Amino acid sequence: MRVRPVIAGSSLSHLDCARCGQREDPDYLQTVCPECGGPLLARYELSREDLRGLPWDLPHRSCDLWRYAELLPVRDRKRRSGLGEGMTPLLRADRLGAALGLESFWIKDEGRNPTGSFKARGMAVAVTRAAELGVEALAAPSAGNAGLAMAAYAACHGLSALVAFPADIPPPYVRECRAYGAEVLVEGATIREAGQALKRHIAANPKWADAFDVSTLREPYRLEGKKTMGYEIAEQLGGVAPDVVLYPTGGGTGLIGIAKAFEEMISLSWMGETTRPRMIAVQMAGCAPVVEAMRAGASRVVPPETAQTRCWGLRVPSPFADREILRTVRDTGGEAVAVEEKELLPAARHALRTTGIDLAPEGAAALAAIPHLLRGGVIRPTDRIVLLNTASSAMYK
Amino acid sequence: MRVRPVIAGSSLSHLDCARCGQREDPDYLQTVCPECGGPLLARYELSREDLRGLPWDLPHRSCDLWRYAELLPVRDRKRRSGLGEGMTPLLRADRLGAALGLESFWIKDEGRNPTGSFKARGMAVAVTRAAELGVEALAAPSAGNAGLAMAAYAACHGLSALVAFPADIPPPYVRECRAYGAEVLVEGATIREAGQALKRHIAANPKWADAFDVSTLREPYRLEGKKTMGYEIAEQLGGVAPDVVLYPTGGGTGLIGIAKAFEEMISLSWMGETTRPRMIAVQMAGCAPVVEAMRAGASRVVPPETAQTRCWGLRVPSPFADREILRTVRDTGGEAVAVEEKELLPAARHALRTTGIDLAPEGAAALAAIPHLLRGGVIRPTDRIVLLNTASSAMYK
Repeated sequence: MRVRPVIAGSSLSHLDCARCGQREDPDYLQTVCPECGGPLLARYELSREDLRGLPWDLPHRSCDLWRYAELLPVRDRKRRSGLGEGMTPLLRADRLGAALGLESFWIKDEGRNPTGSFKARGMAVAVTRAAELGVEALAAPSAGNAGLAMAAYAACHGLSALVAFPADIPPPYVRECRAYGAEVLVEGATIREAGQALKRHIAANPKWADAFDVSTLREPYRLEGKKTMGYEIAEQLGGVAPDVVLYPTGGGTGLIGIAKAFEEMISLSWMGETTRPRMIAVQMAGCAPVVEAMRAGASRVVPPETAQTRCWGLRVPSPFADREILRTVRDTGGEAVAVEEKELLPAARHALRTTGIDLAPEGAAALAAIPHLLRGGVIRPTDRIVLLNTASSAMYK
Repeated sequence: MRVRPVIAGSSLSHLDCARCGQREDPDYLQTVCPECGGPLLARYELSREDLRGLPWDLPHRSCDLWRYAELLPVRDRKRRSGLGEGMTPLLRADRLGAALGLESFWIKDEGRNPTGSFKARGMAVAVTRAAELGVEALAAPSAGNAGLAMAAYAACHGLSALVAFPADIPPPYVRECRAYGAEVLVEGATIREAGQALKRHIAANPKWADAFDVSTLREPYRLEGKKTMGYEIAEQLGGVAPDVVLYPTGGGTGLIGIAKAFEEMISLSWMGETTRPRMIAVQMAGCAPVVEAMRAGASRVVPPETAQTRCWGLRVPSPFADREILRTVRDTGGEAVAVEEKELLPAARHALRTTGIDLAPEGAAALAAIPHLLRGGVIRPTDRIVLLNTASSAMYK
């Protein structure tokens, strides 16, 4: 009744370090670059003949991120499923766009992923790949959503999970992670201190000795899961890139991932060279290291002394991938901009009443940035603009 | 880059009364049968030539319920979008199935819809169709999720909304409906009393005089939105019907809708005559009117004197569509079964830990029914079984 071609194998070829270019074997469990400690990026045989025509086959595949299987690291096709992650709706928001002065405005609603955030994409791919490479236990510190996603995918794939949250974590995260069967530590003032507590706990408990660290960019594949946001935007716009992507930027993996997807699609000849969207990083005034570094023309961030914002996802004073974030923003002709706390609630309410779309504070920050960006001439009313709403507001209630 | 055929028009032909057969014009705003007060069902020109080959075209369409546009009532193609409703994942749950003694077990996760429940499907279609027919304001009493979905789709389409909840409604529902811009009444001990309060409020406020009542089955199109669960199950199983559908049954529109979808697919020649899944209604022991009526061989339910269950969605002592529910269960060779309150939590926990899937109490009830159904010989270990998880657990937290 349906034409359903067989999905071909992953085209994963090797890993290389984003900083020193060191090349590593992707079919062994890898963490960061053994030479310089930089993040390892997955590389694919993008010249493989069958990949050129893959867009013709995509419609026949499942409505989740595994439709891009050839461009993901998981080799065993029987493992390519999870909780229905990805292929989130790209919602045209005409009335909201018009109210802001935009002609072509879409919101990609990542809150519709399993566990309510885009973190599900990264964990779906990283946990599946780790299981494929023999991992039986996972560990990571988290500010919230990543820990929740790790716990859910560990349950989905039958792995053990250990998550460490800082002391000010909202209690529902702890409860829900435990309900998935994860072991939860709550310790430390920041995610960094939670990470130190995690290391001590692992050292003291032989049970966790072999736990694999799935912290963001400390292994190569969460980035691969997140890059599928870029593939989906292109597919959902009918093979055309937007002019601008507005991305609320904390750790920055999503922003780097979307840009990586567009680079890959250009290499695959799915798109022309001129189709890179300008990546715009949105941060909170209380924690805006990327905005400061852009202003200073620096290639590294200087962590602010205090990092204060109720947007937990954007409370990342010292992103591990600062160099890659800054390079991506600059290389794509993008910009970084900060908004004030007091702008969040009116933006979220405006969106809810005029679109019915539930923005997390992070998504509301990106929305609040639009008037600033228009005034500054960074975006134009005629630009085709995609805003990433990285989570639902559920955990903020 | 992609073959993208034009979606043809709706094949909606008329409405007919489920009880007396009275025929009505579908292009005027309709409520219930003017002759007997029964529910009006949407009928389509299922013999239309182009519909026969529609399964070949479905893969090229958007990942939401509007992919079935020809079999939905909305005529204006520009209106066929919303918040990304439908095309929820059908998740194969092998380990959980094996633990229960089932060989082929899937969970359709309706909690992944906008506003977290399958109610979004019904409201997406009913509100869009109402707007198409000139409605500017909506009203309905609700036990929770339907009101939330109505408020969200009213915001999405720029309509006003008035919702009435009973007094014991959890406060988040009230807060969230108001955030979408809806007016909210909280009054009465039951949804029936809330409905009476709603009528008084409308009578006293000229602003709401023209509000359209979108109560379940009091207008023809919420059922049409919910039937898409049936189309999706068939499509996601590759054009094959499951043997059994386990459906947590309160008002029963979802159960009737899924069965209607399979009838339509048989009429469309998309499937053979023998492919009707057995529809199994799951209720709570504290409120099991359908189970009692099945046991008594009755064609109507007798409302229990008290209706006690923490499954709000299943606290429907007197479903408006009792005759249609009972006929559907009998005609498909199905059954009705009740589970105890104490079975819910262990079932939800078991699912969470072995699958990572977040079941609402309603979904947990359907899961808890499986051992009873196996013991009773109602389902067999070799049956292909689809369980509907009608909502996420978010509003229960």
